[in-house]
Amino acid sequence: MEFQTLPNRQDIVTVSHNIRPFIHRTPILTSENLNTVTDAFLYFKCENFQKAGAFKSRGATNAVFSLKKQELIKGVCTHSSGNHAAALSRAAGLRNAKAYIVMPENSSRVKIAAVKHYGGKITFCKPNLKSREDTLKEVIEKTGAIEIHPYNDYRIIAGQATAAQELIEDIKDLDIILAPVGGGGLLSGTALAAKYFAPNIQVMAAEPAGADDAYRSFYEGRFIPSNNPNTIADGLLTSMGTLTYPIIQQYVSDILRVSENSIVTAMKLIWERMKIIVEPSSAVPFAAILENHDIFAGKRTGIIISGGNVDLQKLPWN
Amino acid sequence: MEFQTLPNRQDIVTVSHNIRPFIHRTPILTSENLNTVTDAFLYFKCENFQKAGAFKSRGATNAVFSLKKQELIKGVCTHSSGNHAAALSRAAGLRNAKAYIVMPENSSRVKIAAVKHYGGKITFCKPNLKSREDTLKEVIEKTGAIEIHPYNDYRIIAGQATAAQELIEDIKDLDIILAPVGGGGLLSGTALAAKYFAPNIQVMAAEPAGADDAYRSFYEGRFIPSNNPNTIADGLLTSMGTLTYPIIQQYVSDILRVSENSIVTAMKLIWERMKIIVEPSSAVPFAAILENHDIFAGKRTGIIISGGNVDLQKLPWN
Repeated sequence: MEFQTLPNRQDIVTVSHNIRPFIHRTPILTSENLNTVTDAFLYFKCENFQKAGAFKSRGATNAVFSLKKQELIKGVCTHSSGNHAAALSRAAGLRNAKAYIVMPENSSRVKIAAVKHYGGKITFCKPNLKSREDTLKEVIEKTGAIEIHPYNDYRIIAGQATAAQELIEDIKDLDIILAPVGGGGLLSGTALAAKYFAPNIQVMAAEPAGADDAYRSFYEGRFIPSNNPNTIADGLLTSMGTLTYPIIQQYVSDILRVSENSIVTAMKLIWERMKIIVEPSSAVPFAAILENHDIFAGKRTGIIISGGNVDLQKLPWN
Repeated sequence: MEFQTLPNRQDIVTVSHNIRPFIHRTPILTSENLNTVTDAFLYFKCENFQKAGAFKSRGATNAVFSLKKQELIKGVCTHSSGNHAAALSRAAGLRNAKAYIVMPENSSRVKIAAVKHYGGKITFCKPNLKSREDTLKEVIEKTGAIEIHPYNDYRIIAGQATAAQELIEDIKDLDIILAPVGGGGLLSGTALAAKYFAPNIQVMAAEPAGADDAYRSFYEGRFIPSNNPNTIADGLLTSMGTLTYPIIQQYVSDILRVSENSIVTAMKLIWERMKIIVEPSSAVPFAAILENHDIFAGKRTGIIISGGNVDLQKLPWN
């Protein structure tokens, strides 16, 4: 399934059907304890339990399975320091195709190991966008692999939309769905899912104050790229894309910025009280709830827990 | 429901019914990754998601709800450094009764905080059995509270049995159930549940080599108490009891000892691959599977994950 235009309702239903054999329908957890802390009713859609440890498996799987067998002969490629790299490697492996991954040389040990585990072939580059793009270009010239962008691709957006679609199916009468925003693949997919399957739900985003390009774009009404972002939420450093930004601008109702302290507090609370491992980026929505009591008090709020890939040797509270 | 004699099948069914409103029916998780690592089919019964973070809520809830209202007027009490203390405090609170907890002064910060969170009234003592028992005696003399022993009590054993009972109901045709053994409340309950509800299942135990009183008792055929136990698995330091030992001797098919290294490796693998937080004691059964490939290869094995209460500031790999 390939889209040149905005995925419609039926597209997302079809994608959901297509990727189902290859991904988990992740559980939705609740915590009386965290409900009490926030005075809200929280429903955590646990994509940290997803294949390869993050929602990224949804989009990557859809993108890879959208390609014809012949298109896969030369493999797929991307530049990514994070979860998309592992998810794409895994998805390519499911179709016996090669995945070429350009990773910054300072990528985390754990993320590098995950890409290797799934059979991705890594080319290291310098940790800046120019080196990433130049190196990817070289890889493409050498291999002929097809690029799968981490978020600025309707097949990816439609795949990520299936997380919110499942949440909406499983939990009735949500008031709000809250997702983190980095490049905007998850957020734009979440916004489309709500628009098509439960238009009364408000979709809100949470973003680190230290990487607030989405917030600034949203409130200035024009696309502003990320500028020296600095946050522990390493999945949220990227700028939005030309495809994700307009969806977010149109269908998201607010973007809440959170402090680094709140992110660490939120992450630790989720680990301690829920006994699940979430990565810093995943804790950003819950941090927004902690910082904005009055918005969420009494509200049935769905939270997309985006992933659980953490270096256990480098925890922010140690 | 009070038992002076070994709980029978119907007793456990009744206990399960009685405590249901007050505890979680915990999920059973699987991991393709860990199945591949072990060549086995593993079903993790996640009592780390249980109320108060451990299976102990089952037994403690049953014991407290077995008491008549009048018996609860002066409260309940116990000595415990760990999860039973929090579970008993919570269960007493559910009936508006007081819980007096004697804790060694070196108990972990996190366990002390949990007892306080659930309203337990703590009296600290020296970290040895004599001081624990003497202090508890003083507390009883002063308050008239009823002692609820952490494991040497048929009401506790019947409560803990409900974890395996649920596992057996949810997963058909298990070959083996593996539980950790400390005082033996969970293990004896697990053995009874298998005997009554699925007698073809082998119940096996896993124990740290540094605290192997159950292993030595089992193979010498006589009760041998713990002697200077030393293990990271802080829930498994205690000796078996006069009620738990005979059940274990009769109905458990083997006890496997594991090294401290294996416990840490097992714990980290569960955190990394399953994205759930388990305490060291909970990792002991999986450590036994890692150390005994040939026993478990090809076997459908249920594992009771006993709890998830960990001091996140003190992880064994940091």
